[in-house]
Amino acid sequence: MKPEGEPIHQESKEVGVSGGISILELILRIIAIIGTLGSAVAMGTTDQTLPFSTQALIFQAQYDDIPTFRFFVIANAVVCGYLAISLPMAIYHIIRTGAAKTRALLILLDTAMLAVLTAGASSAAAIVYLAHKGNASANWLAICQQYNNFCKRITGSLIGSFGAVFVFVLLVPLSGLVLCRLR
Amino acid sequence: MKPEGEPIHQESKEVGVSGGISILELILRIIAIIGTLGSAVAMGTTDQTLPFSTQALIFQAQYDDIPTFRFFVIANAVVCGYLAISLPMAIYHIIRTGAAKTRALLILLDTAMLAVLTAGASSAAAIVYLAHKGNASANWLAICQQYNNFCKRITGSLIGSFGAVFVFVLLVPLSGLVLCRLR
Repeated sequence: MKPEGEPIHQESKEVGVSGGISILELILRIIAIIGTLGSAVAMGTTDQTLPFSTQALIFQAQYDDIPTFRFFVIANAVVCGYLAISLPMAIYHIIRTGAAKTRALLILLDTAMLAVLTAGASSAAAIVYLAHKGNASANWLAICQQYNNFCKRITGSLIGSFGAVFVFVLLVPLSGLVLCRLR
Repeated sequence: MKPEGEPIHQESKEVGVSGGISILELILRIIAIIGTLGSAVAMGTTDQTLPFSTQALIFQAQYDDIPTFRFFVIANAVVCGYLAISLPMAIYHIIRTGAAKTRALLILLDTAMLAVLTAGASSAAAIVYLAHKGNASANWLAICQQYNNFCKRITGSLIGSFGAVFVFVLLVPLSGLVLCRLR
């Protein structure tokens, strides 16, 4: 229930809160760009050759030996590109806090990107887990004893991606909150 | 731009569209319940004992040999439970198409559940892919030649889960759309 008096003051306060949320959204998007870009680059440049490799026999682990990691890099790159494109829209929302249609559009796109990024991050996490622990039942051995640096690198590259997933889980409801307040 | 004339008629039309979307949301939620429940049950009951097993040596594949599949079952069960709890809220939105706060809350919860379900489905998919194809670089052999029925079952159980992910990707923007129209 809104108080009867001072409707203009009330409204400017509403705009202030929505503006604050819009600025927070912009910052979150920039954080997510850094996270996804870092993950894509960290995974995409992962490559380890074991010291006992010879000219005839090369023991080498590369990220694209495993298709899931290729998907991880692509998903992160796509989401990073989307986030960069969405920045002008986020800035527009700071200036025009009352814009509802573009916010609803952002909810749609953010939700789709959340699904893509979570799929990439989780499937890679499943393989990383397997690389660390192996699985006795399926007779899949842990490869991290041999490829130690490779494993550290791929494990680290998950962090940025899951951080960006968390940012998206915040971004979508924040847009919903602003739409709810606009009413 | 709304036309100047017939504001009441215009409003009732708006309510009609929002009501239609609310009914669609209820149907989508019921579909997602069926999908996640089916996936959880199909995966959770997967168990294959090979015919050449002896009393001393049992060749058996169960879903909980692989931790990722256990996570898949838990994620599907949690999301299924959440969806069942959210049904009364969805019915409330059909009756009260103007409710904004509960819709914003649903956007928050749906987004979180989308992330959980996508994580479960994708990580399981990564392992299922590995079970089918194996990976020569990591020396992980495909296990589907031996455990054929097991593999068919776990592959099939992914369908319901990914279907529910798709439903969530529709549900969240639909709530956003209704909030946008309420303005």
